[in-house]
Amino acid sequence: MSTKVNVGIIGAGRIGKLHAENLAYRIPEANVIAIADINLEAAQKCAADFQIPSAVQDHVEIMKNPDIEAVIICSSTDTHAWMIEEAAAAGKHIFCEKPIDFDLARIDSALEAVDKAGVKLQIGFNRRFDPSFKRVREMVAAGKIGTPHILRITSRDPEPPPIEYIKVSGGIFLDMTIHDFDMARYLIGDEVGEIYAAGGVMVDPAIGQAGDIDTAVIVLRFENGTIGTIDNSRRAVYGYDQRVEVFGSEGMVAVSNNTPDTAVYSDAEGVHSSLPLFFFVERYTEAYVAEMREFIECVQQDKTPSVTGTDGRIPVVMGYAAMRSYEENRPVKLSEIE
Amino acid sequence: MSTKVNVGIIGAGRIGKLHAENLAYRIPEANVIAIADINLEAAQKCAADFQIPSAVQDHVEIMKNPDIEAVIICSSTDTHAWMIEEAAAAGKHIFCEKPIDFDLARIDSALEAVDKAGVKLQIGFNRRFDPSFKRVREMVAAGKIGTPHILRITSRDPEPPPIEYIKVSGGIFLDMTIHDFDMARYLIGDEVGEIYAAGGVMVDPAIGQAGDIDTAVIVLRFENGTIGTIDNSRRAVYGYDQRVEVFGSEGMVAVSNNTPDTAVYSDAEGVHSSLPLFFFVERYTEAYVAEMREFIECVQQDKTPSVTGTDGRIPVVMGYAAMRSYEENRPVKLSEIE
Amino acid sequence: MSTKVNVGIIGAGRIGKLHAENLAYRIPEANVIAIADINLEAAQKCAADFQIPSAVQDHVEIMKNPDIEAVIICSSTDTHAWMIEEAAAAGKHIFCEKPIDFDLARIDSALEAVDKAGVKLQIGFNRRFDPSFKRVREMVAAGKIGTPHILRITSRDPEPPPIEYIKVSGGIFLDMTIHDFDMARYLIGDEVGEIYAAGGVMVDPAIGQAGDIDTAVIVLRFENGTIGTIDNSRRAVYGYDQRVEVFGSEGMVAVSNNTPDTAVYSDAEGVHSSLPLFFFVERYTEAYVAEMREFIECVQQDKTPSVTGTDGRIPVVMGYAAMRSYEENRPVKLSEIE
Amino acid sequence: MSTKVNVGIIGAGRIGKLHAENLAYRIPEANVIAIADINLEAAQKCAADFQIPSAVQDHVEIMKNPDIEAVIICSSTDTHAWMIEEAAAAGKHIFCEKPIDFDLARIDSALEAVDKAGVKLQIGFNRRFDPSFKRVREMVAAGKIGTPHILRITSRDPEPPPIEYIKVSGGIFLDMTIHDFDMARYLIGDEVGEIYAAGGVMVDPAIGQAGDIDTAVIVLRFENGTIGTIDNSRRAVYGYDQRVEVFGSEGMVAVSNNTPDTAVYSDAEGVHSSLPLFFFVERYTEAYVAEMREFIECVQQDKTPSVTGTDGRIPVVMGYAAMRSYEENRPVKLSEIE
Repeated sequence: MSTKVNVGIIGAGRIGKLHAENLAYRIPEANVIAIADINLEAAQKCAADFQIPSAVQDHVEIMKNPDIEAVIICSSTDTHAWMIEEAAAAGKHIFCEKPIDFDLARIDSALEAVDKAGVKLQIGFNRRFDPSFKRVREMVAAGKIGTPHILRITSRDPEPPPIEYIKVSGGIFLDMTIHDFDMARYLIGDEVGEIYAAGGVMVDPAIGQAGDIDTAVIVLRFENGTIGTIDNSRRAVYGYDQRVEVFGSEGMVAVSNNTPDTAVYSDAEGVHSSLPLFFFVERYTEAYVAEMREFIECVQQDKTPSVTGTDGRIPVVMGYAAMRSYEENRPVKLSEIE
Repeated sequence: MSTKVNVGIIGAGRIGKLHAENLAYRIPEANVIAIADINLEAAQKCAADFQIPSAVQDHVEIMKNPDIEAVIICSSTDTHAWMIEEAAAAGKHIFCEKPIDFDLARIDSALEAVDKAGVKLQIGFNRRFDPSFKRVREMVAAGKIGTPHILRITSRDPEPPPIEYIKVSGGIFLDMTIHDFDMARYLIGDEVGEIYAAGGVMVDPAIGQAGDIDTAVIVLRFENGTIGTIDNSRRAVYGYDQRVEVFGSEGMVAVSNNTPDTAVYSDAEGVHSSLPLFFFVERYTEAYVAEMREFIECVQQDKTPSVTGTDGRIPVVMGYAAMRSYEENRPVKLSEIE
Repeated sequence: MSTKVNVGIIGAGRIGKLHAENLAYRIPEANVIAIADINLEAAQKCAADFQIPSAVQDHVEIMKNPDIEAVIICSSTDTHAWMIEEAAAAGKHIFCEKPIDFDLARIDSALEAVDKAGVKLQIGFNRRFDPSFKRVREMVAAGKIGTPHILRITSRDPEPPPIEYIKVSGGIFLDMTIHDFDMARYLIGDEVGEIYAAGGVMVDPAIGQAGDIDTAVIVLRFENGTIGTIDNSRRAVYGYDQRVEVFGSEGMVAVSNNTPDTAVYSDAEGVHSSLPLFFFVERYTEAYVAEMREFIECVQQDKTPSVTGTDGRIPVVMGYAAMRSYEENRPVKLSEIE
Repeated sequence: MSTKVNVGIIGAGRIGKLHAENLAYRIPEANVIAIADINLEAAQKCAADFQIPSAVQDHVEIMKNPDIEAVIICSSTDTHAWMIEEAAAAGKHIFCEKPIDFDLARIDSALEAVDKAGVKLQIGFNRRFDPSFKRVREMVAAGKIGTPHILRITSRDPEPPPIEYIKVSGGIFLDMTIHDFDMARYLIGDEVGEIYAAGGVMVDPAIGQAGDIDTAVIVLRFENGTIGTIDNSRRAVYGYDQRVEVFGSEGMVAVSNNTPDTAVYSDAEGVHSSLPLFFFVERYTEAYVAEMREFIECVQQDKTPSVTGTDGRIPVVMGYAAMRSYEENRPVKLSEIE
């Protein structure tokens, strides 16, 4: 059997803690030996909680640590590209949260650094590892629905993030729809050539004042002819709504929401069942474990991660195309971007 | 109690026969006294089947018959506007199948004739009378979902019509989507200002050779801000797929397909349930009865039908907007049409 | 084509009216020419409503009417056996509501009269004609679930009948479970040898004071080894609960409740769908039409009805076995009865 | 925060390994310091897999180890009572797999030893910790369904155990139904007074030759009047079937099976979804973690486990009552046992 993979985590915020816990308790093949956060206390708390031997403020200590083979980048988005380059230079394998960057040129130079260093890079599109979406992909790939004609993605959050976050989020298309752009490419196994986006401020006027929209409908034209729609809302009062449907010449496959239990209650008023799992932490619990397990396995067994740097770049291009489409109210080709 | 309504039917094709049967056996308040078809034999067969006393070749006999209060127009689309005018001139109340005409000016003159004559006119948008769609409308109107944000209509046929029919159908937007345009207006209770349509030939190249498309995705921008999508296919191998979903600030309401039975079969391979009811005759059996019952009741009790001439006109405008959008690959305002 | 079947209806109560309406408006091959009720007014109202030419007080007029080929017996249970004998003597084909009688000897003499006269007899076990239960029977008969091992029938009413009715009902096993006994035999296609019944008064003490119980669980031992359970309640607050499940060596088939619509509403509290159709009139609307259509067709085309006199007798035996089992708290063999 | 709980595991078979993995990777508050198995190699493999420092052949080493506060008893059933006594004598808290023993006197002396020693004892009825069943219990306890009238438990395994196991299993009622007896008591929150059991050999004649049955239907009479049914099969070809339903004066709550994904596939043949999770390891993954988490928390925070020794004893009594009922074909009171 191969030896365990020594890992360093950069960033001890919500997603950093989630990965730290999974690496510590759910993935025996990983060995987290250090965690860094500019907020040292956060790093220390995380280290204490998940038995990580070392907590540091300066991520450079992780990059320099010769025992660390792989880094998990969970710091703020504006540092991702730079962290990737540092890690690549240090010869570490890299797991990086999405998006790589909002600047395509920065993404390109980061990916180039990865290529040059020959290290592995996996982007955190966790939803691909959800058993239901994975099943849809497998069925589409196996030809069970024939040639895909229509794709539908519903992706609605239970509540908007704080307005302060909205302001630096890059906007709904780069912050929220980006996951759905990845899902669309993953499910169909093809590239999108053109995007049309409609949207508005329906949930909260403050989101509009922050320069963003909170509701969107996006039409995707794939190169193979498939037409896709995505609909997004920053607030579904009934919880996290994550569904997909692929319709093709030989059939259709659809995925509905996951619930915490299967209890169905009937009373004099109606038949009632449970709301979907509240948000991404609950819905994608297992997907977060599975993506990290794949990353550790790729490092340990020298395999290529299935979610590549290019997979991290294209949804950013799609986000810009959607943004321009929304602004100019016309279909925008991806080739118009960059 | 009011006396029965004497009815004449024009057209003994598939839909004419369906209405004849419903009027004869399901709607005690109606009394079908004559049926006309240019194919006299068809009229005679229908008369024999449903105990209609008189079968004629020339619809004028129906228009002239002083005993007939109301006519049901089920002849070919190109005759609808003309029949409406004749019936109005004869002082008959009118139930007319959709669409009124492909020519907006012709529609206008027909509606003007109806207005002038003061007769009732109901357009055959039967789906509004489906209990599930009706329930959705009622819940939206009652504010159960709050302000509507996103509307979704899935409308896929089990099989395309014959190519000969495709050629004279007016194209997918005027022939098939027209029902969904009406449904969209009905469910949201508001008008659409702009349409974007994408589509292609995916089901059968012969449909493309006939100058039409067979698959479409349409985005609707309502005046109140709601964004809607419609997706259409001329062939869903699993049967007639008729679903809607309305999402709003306070909730969501969705409708799925009807099935002939509720049997669920589990074997070593999976869990299996029945396909949707095959096509419109099966799915909308009760809706066809209900729309006709409303028409007869409106005549009998001097009430105004809920599906008006204007409701017949607007979806045609929407069809032209969708067509132009598809051709020019840009969002088209309804105000650009006519 | 064969000529229409002339029918007389005896009894203009709830079920008599239901059959009258179906025969008048849904079954073109039937021609209702008379209806009798000891309450003449009820017969007259029914005749007026459904265009029946003759309304009489004395059912003998129907028996004597040479134009009538078939009678529909919907009078009170205590008259069924006697009416069957009169009708048989008059050479009429017979549709009779369940149960034939509470006295097995009376049933036997009635069935003997039918045999001797060579007329057709169909018993009103309408649930067999429900598309979902029918589908289950077909799948079981086709071997889709292999050898049946376990049968489960849930049969709960939305509300108890009036106490006055309870008193003359024959008790829950003969009044309510009798339908489930028939369903059990129908679904498994085999006879029950032994019954164990548990029960109690849980819904309304007044039912107990009337000498009956309102809740029961019954275990059936079929001759082929299948074990069945039936559970009954006189009041399910959420409506008419009519489900079955058959489990066997190769799979399982189950049927759930029918609903008036498929609308699913999600709000901040949960996911809500519609209650089952309220009661038998709503749930079995089509089954009532279908059973009568079969009867008319059997008369018209000289075929044997699928629900025979013996099918009417055996569930009464089962009812007595259940009653004795409940009273003596032990399994009772059907051979102990009579 | 309290210190971690040092744990020793006795038995490294299937269930021992499962608990070892959960304690090692899913329950940070536990510290497994030794594992014992008469098959030393099995203990060593388990220790290696889950980073347990010590693997021993003789469980006495665990009992004697002063660092160990709590033992997890996963050895064969015939050793449970004896292990409990030894552990109690050594002052260890005890988690023991079900059943405690097949001999009620042995159970009593084991429970007495626990009482005398004042240690905690939790019995491994894991299903109580399943989120869906827990939800049902909470709703019943909260009065959401009013007074319970009818309980229904479906519990079918995907495949029978080896015949060698069947022979020492204690029979279906003590091996398989025992879980359902516990579930019944848990859901209703009341004791059963009388049991009627029917059953047969339907799955495999070899099970009959081994002196057992493979299919059973059990009726439970609760002291509060509720009537329950349990149905068991050793082989459901579609997988592990674990459902419950509680019906009462104010409503009903039901739980269906869990599936690995929510994908629904429609093709020209039907609508298909995934089979239930295969067996207890998959279905109760989280329940096994939750029950162990509760045990560790009870030890750490000096609380009383919710599944007590009495909860371990009563289902054994119920098993004997069911057995006698089956053999003598009559309802058997629990008071007749012992």
